[in-house]
Amino acid sequence: MAPLNWVGLDVGGSSMKGGVIDDGGAVLSAVSLPTEAQRGQEFGLERMCETIREAVRAAGLGMDQIAAIGVATPGTMDIPAGLILDPPNLYPWRNVPVRQFIHDRFGLPTAFQNDANAAAYGEYCYGAGKEARSMVLFTLGTGIGCGIILDDLIVEGRHSHGAEVGHTKIEMTQPRRCGCGRWGCLEAYASAMSVVKRTVEALAKEGGKSSLGELLHQQGELTSRDVFNAAAAGDALAERIVEETAFCLAVGAMNMMHTIDPDMVAYAGGMIAAGQSFLERIRRHVHEMAFPVPAARTEIVYARLGSDAGFIGAAACGRQLYLRRQK
Amino acid sequence: MAPLNWVGLDVGGSSMKGGVIDDGGAVLSAVSLPTEAQRGQEFGLERMCETIREAVRAAGLGMDQIAAIGVATPGTMDIPAGLILDPPNLYPWRNVPVRQFIHDRFGLPTAFQNDANAAAYGEYCYGAGKEARSMVLFTLGTGIGCGIILDDLIVEGRHSHGAEVGHTKIEMTQPRRCGCGRWGCLEAYASAMSVVKRTVEALAKEGGKSSLGELLHQQGELTSRDVFNAAAAGDALAERIVEETAFCLAVGAMNMMHTIDPDMVAYAGGMIAAGQSFLERIRRHVHEMAFPVPAARTEIVYARLGSDAGFIGAAACGRQLYLRRQK
Repeated sequence: MAPLNWVGLDVGGSSMKGGVIDDGGAVLSAVSLPTEAQRGQEFGLERMCETIREAVRAAGLGMDQIAAIGVATPGTMDIPAGLILDPPNLYPWRNVPVRQFIHDRFGLPTAFQNDANAAAYGEYCYGAGKEARSMVLFTLGTGIGCGIILDDLIVEGRHSHGAEVGHTKIEMTQPRRCGCGRWGCLEAYASAMSVVKRTVEALAKEGGKSSLGELLHQQGELTSRDVFNAAAAGDALAERIVEETAFCLAVGAMNMMHTIDPDMVAYAGGMIAAGQSFLERIRRHVHEMAFPVPAARTEIVYARLGSDAGFIGAAACGRQLYLRRQK
Repeated sequence: MAPLNWVGLDVGGSSMKGGVIDDGGAVLSAVSLPTEAQRGQEFGLERMCETIREAVRAAGLGMDQIAAIGVATPGTMDIPAGLILDPPNLYPWRNVPVRQFIHDRFGLPTAFQNDANAAAYGEYCYGAGKEARSMVLFTLGTGIGCGIILDDLIVEGRHSHGAEVGHTKIEMTQPRRCGCGRWGCLEAYASAMSVVKRTVEALAKEGGKSSLGELLHQQGELTSRDVFNAAAAGDALAERIVEETAFCLAVGAMNMMHTIDPDMVAYAGGMIAAGQSFLERIRRHVHEMAFPVPAARTEIVYARLGSDAGFIGAAACGRQLYLRRQK
């Protein structure tokens, strides 16, 4: 049998990333093209095909050496129908039949998946979760993405809302407003945006001694990295924000350990640049809070595939679809 | 082929319930014997065998007409190993090899499962969730039990801690102490015991006008049913407690809708005696809080099998094991 290769596409608000992996998960190519969502969805679909062809070419392969395609997009979506519905960061796209279009264009088995789910599946197959049978991945960026894999099953949910764990409620008494419009969501406490927001609020209240006040004044804004750097340099206010963030992430991890009870909880996204000491903080809170057995045994780690996880995972979804059809 | 029958056993702290179901889930018998855990685990294992034989006899069948057995027990446990570890309500049992013992005694395929998971699987196969492909069941008793079924997969977790959703954290600022020793668990807000505890606290603080003050004085204690009755009769304090309880249950339901995104969330246990109006309260809060699509489409219902769900589900676990081995 000819060696099998898989092409994955990860469509984001500003760019789409495509790449080819071989059956062992080795990345043979990685390319990126601007999404230019504002040019409309017909353009967007053509751009997806172009990125896929580019990725295959960059891998030195022909389309006849590709066994299946996987496409990952941000929500909202109808996963079983292969449809993008009306995701805020792909405006003005609406009801885009992604899977059918890509399938018809290339005549290959085509999987369609939510981007956070795809990233989790990528880490599960070829990254941090390679040895795990079940995994929850949190992607810590502006928001909090999540994907849950249970014995090779991607928990996409009955209404394509599976693993929206960033929008589970962890606070009732003084719930913070979340970007989604709800109150008390995990994302409102532990995303990069929340780190910045809580820091700016704390500065306004107690400002004086923190080095971040001056930095905010100079830069006009702060990033979560500024806050983590200040904490590392001993700034007390920043230290408190970082500690609270680790605690809230531990609440999210524990809640999944008491729901899914996976082999592994992993973190990806920009915020893991905060490094090993931040991971240790999360682990410590989990150990203090969770039931003893999962607290002792659940692996809590950083992800390994970086920003390639999306297209690698999309390609792995193509592979999963292909293999299921072979059965 | 001879018709297939399954026997299920649900071991509880005070009694164990056994019964036979046929392949369509019809209950052919239901018997109950006292557990008498204090007499030790050897006695307990014999009592399990006795209950199983009783159930088969009461169904008018012989053991040769039983295709498989399922046993459900309370935690803590090691499900894959078939072991009860050291559950508080089966003191002084410790490391009891339930599955092996029952299997050796009867020479039949024997499934072993957590009691809350088994109840959920029973409702999934033969009760409220018969038409559902995925379901989360909350059992509202002294504590909150939970079981999660995804496409015929029982989410038992890597460390037998799957679906311990009663011990997910929903409050950080003023967390209530849970019976498990943790803080801010769903169970501390929405179990029958929590309803009573919060009522007694509220009476101590604001007492005067509530009819429950007098009742507590007369009876020396309250039940959650007293509180629901008082709310139905227009007692303002009771009404507030019931409303808060519905809200907290809705938080639990929403969190599962944003994690598992099942077809159905169902409630079982003594507290559902509160009736349809209580269910409507939960539904209203879910509709207000959850993402629009799952809020509109997820069925939120009461379970149907009552206290038979445990042994019916255990029997269904036996059936699942048997059918998997036929493949």
